[in-house]
Amino acid sequence: MYSAKIKVTLRKSILDPQGKAVEHSIQSLGYNNILDTRIGKYIELKINTSSDEEARIITDEVCKKLLANPVMEDYNFEVANINDK
Amino acid sequence: MYSAKIKVTLRKSILDPQGKAVEHSIQSLGYNNILDTRIGKYIELKINTSSDEEARIITDEVCKKLLANPVMEDYNFEVANINDK
Repeated sequence: MYSAKIKVTLRKSILDPQGKAVEHSIQSLGYNNILDTRIGKYIELKINTSSDEEARIITDEVCKKLLANPVMEDYNFEVANINDK
Repeated sequence: MYSAKIKVTLRKSILDPQGKAVEHSIQSLGYNNILDTRIGKYIELKINTSSDEEARIITDEVCKKLLANPVMEDYNFEVANINDK
């Protein structure tokens, strides 16, 4: 069994109004030294396979096909072997 | 200047219908070995400070006060020194 931890972020060139809104909220709490706030998605899933290679391939395919929009978003992930509990 | 990378995830005991929906979509693509899909938020921000300690304290406060709902969500973060460009 493998676990995959995936981060999907907006590309640098894409404006992030949600991030801007959160940044304004943070600043209104009195933190004036916060900048460049950007919001993305974080996805965890488990893959029932015994091969590290296969876990990576499946995670990459799922990101490309479903989790990330390749026009607007970048993704990166970590895959780790976990004990079958 | 420090960068903070924050993951906010639903607590294990809280049902995640969005994760379930994504998991069904993944399975409908033919990946039958995917399970325990959970969706969270990923937030990046920069902190204009020269102290590692202060960057950690600010990030933790912002998570507690704004980014995470402590009743339903857990958070963890990494803080790293970045060059002032």
